[in-house]
Amino acid sequence: MKQQEIDLWITFTREGNEDPLAQDLRFDNITWRSAAIIDRNLEKTAIVGSLEEEAIKQRDFYDQVIGYGSEGASPKLKQVISRLHPKRIAINKSQDEGAADGLTSTMEQYLKKALKGIKAEYVSAEDLAIALRARLIPEEVALVKKAIAECEKIYDEAEKIIRPGKKDRDVFQYIHQLVEQKNLEYAWASDHCPSVVAGNSPAGHVAYYGDTIHKGDFVRLDFGVKYQGYCSDIQRNYIVGPTTIPAGVKKMFQTARKANDIALDNLKPGIPGYKIDQLARNHITKQGYPEYKHALGHVLGRSTHEIGPLLGPRWPNRYGTAPLKTVQKDLVFTIEPSVTSRYGTCNLEQDVLITSNGYRDLSKPQTELIMVG
Amino acid sequence: MKQQEIDLWITFTREGNEDPLAQDLRFDNITWRSAAIIDRNLEKTAIVGSLEEEAIKQRDFYDQVIGYGSEGASPKLKQVISRLHPKRIAINKSQDEGAADGLTSTMEQYLKKALKGIKAEYVSAEDLAIALRARLIPEEVALVKKAIAECEKIYDEAEKIIRPGKKDRDVFQYIHQLVEQKNLEYAWASDHCPSVVAGNSPAGHVAYYGDTIHKGDFVRLDFGVKYQGYCSDIQRNYIVGPTTIPAGVKKMFQTARKANDIALDNLKPGIPGYKIDQLARNHITKQGYPEYKHALGHVLGRSTHEIGPLLGPRWPNRYGTAPLKTVQKDLVFTIEPSVTSRYGTCNLEQDVLITSNGYRDLSKPQTELIMVG
Repeated sequence: MKQQEIDLWITFTREGNEDPLAQDLRFDNITWRSAAIIDRNLEKTAIVGSLEEEAIKQRDFYDQVIGYGSEGASPKLKQVISRLHPKRIAINKSQDEGAADGLTSTMEQYLKKALKGIKAEYVSAEDLAIALRARLIPEEVALVKKAIAECEKIYDEAEKIIRPGKKDRDVFQYIHQLVEQKNLEYAWASDHCPSVVAGNSPAGHVAYYGDTIHKGDFVRLDFGVKYQGYCSDIQRNYIVGPTTIPAGVKKMFQTARKANDIALDNLKPGIPGYKIDQLARNHITKQGYPEYKHALGHVLGRSTHEIGPLLGPRWPNRYGTAPLKTVQKDLVFTIEPSVTSRYGTCNLEQDVLITSNGYRDLSKPQTELIMVG
Repeated sequence: MKQQEIDLWITFTREGNEDPLAQDLRFDNITWRSAAIIDRNLEKTAIVGSLEEEAIKQRDFYDQVIGYGSEGASPKLKQVISRLHPKRIAINKSQDEGAADGLTSTMEQYLKKALKGIKAEYVSAEDLAIALRARLIPEEVALVKKAIAECEKIYDEAEKIIRPGKKDRDVFQYIHQLVEQKNLEYAWASDHCPSVVAGNSPAGHVAYYGDTIHKGDFVRLDFGVKYQGYCSDIQRNYIVGPTTIPAGVKKMFQTARKANDIALDNLKPGIPGYKIDQLARNHITKQGYPEYKHALGHVLGRSTHEIGPLLGPRWPNRYGTAPLKTVQKDLVFTIEPSVTSRYGTCNLEQDVLITSNGYRDLSKPQTELIMVG
């Protein structure tokens, strides 16, 4: 906060539309309009409806818990914040990051009316939110690794079901069965987790297309599980054999692998996200493949698409300024450039942790096309 | 929509901070800025990122699904909405209802910029949201009844654990054990569901206070479970015996029962929520008890505190205009006035369904103090 000259950060939320950061701030499941305030000295104050004063105290996270009654949140808000004499107040507004954009239009109006007379500039808390939520401590990295290990185990088990005559739907259902058996959660919406694409059906956030798997098909799975609140996100690519791998498939695979490796070789703190994307993207188009229509990679953690710098192209209408942000230590990224040919789309998505001068593999990179069948 | 002269309703949302109505609109788990548009003829159009076009089509809910690419959501939004020539556009902004207040300040700005040049008035979609989400069809009422039945079973089983020498925490933990065994979900945050209050500890959204239960104690539980997405919310009140019930406890109980009954006798479509609250509140204060510091009741359904008219006092700073809204058929309400004395707080919370000319019990009303121990 001092770096950004922010005097206090207010998360202002209520029941029915909880701020996405509420859990990170131990401020989830509140009922009435409530404010979680962190000041420049990292003192934490909660202003909540009086019936919840005791519950928030019991969470033992806030230095001060203040209840209000039928007068509403406004007077206590004004009183607490006036005392802090803020010049810059961070609020949860963000163009690019949904999870840092929790302040609704109505709640912003309420807050600013309550604080009328306090001469302060309002700024986005986006970077504070990224620091709070996306940068992981070692205990959290261990949970991501566990989520990855569970995901990889399921991938290994699922290989036997990808064979001629089976449907993409069978693969989807088998993986669902394994997830339920293991009592795991899905890393994203279960209606397209996994996504199973056989042959040259298009890529997308879809469960399956109803295709039958044939010998010679290129098959790609996109899948992840959540373990104790932390996500994995991996893709694997298969060829249905026994068959001689066509030269076109080999080239597609090698181009994808090389694109991943070029991105990884350059991945380290301080580099803007778009530069990493550009390197992989350029390699792919130079080999004569079309440009992929998404970002090279995203932050992974408490959610699959976590907030933070995007390893993506500078398409301001789609990605805003997220690709301009620089890579930071302790972020986990997916690396997932796509190479599309008439055989399908190859994408060797892997998960890596940013270290002080580079990255560390968290998942096992796919270095060869897996022959199944 | 015609009643309110609304030409179209836009729910504009994205990943990371999903609109609370997204699930109701089959619009959950989308990634990029996406709009769910319902026009005056109830034609439904979805505008989504191109990678999600197929997935939304597969949900088979929207008459039209339009994908966009790197140009962002803005051009398609303008194009689709211009064609509809709207005069009044409803958006998800609401002073009183969190779940109808999903539009963030940043997203509102984006939307209005995209629609610049379209001369329309923006109004709150609050009443549309209530109709969509809070009014229940018979199949949904059946699920609420099932949630109530499961809740009541757990209450019955838990009676044996409320006895002298046990702690409030033991009761809390025993109920948690039953919920887990039965593979049910909690109707609200598990850290205060149930809420167990022994003796005259204060009421509030709290799990327990760490009290030991003694003979003669008045004990109150507030508890609910969720069944297939629908909630129950019930309170029961006990006296720890064997003991002769003190006259003061008897009077407290009878006053609470009578307050419930007065409220119920007057509950029917068309009556403003505050009038129901007032009747119960006046009865309690006339008997010499303090005014309760909350609302008499709230809508129950997909969530425990569901959107809709509030059976609450006209405290505008706390409850806004929700108590001015009128009771509607097909809403489920809790009825829960509190009577506080030196023995504790008595609250006979029950759940009822509004019919065309009154109400129907969904839960079993508590008509006598339960003696345990």
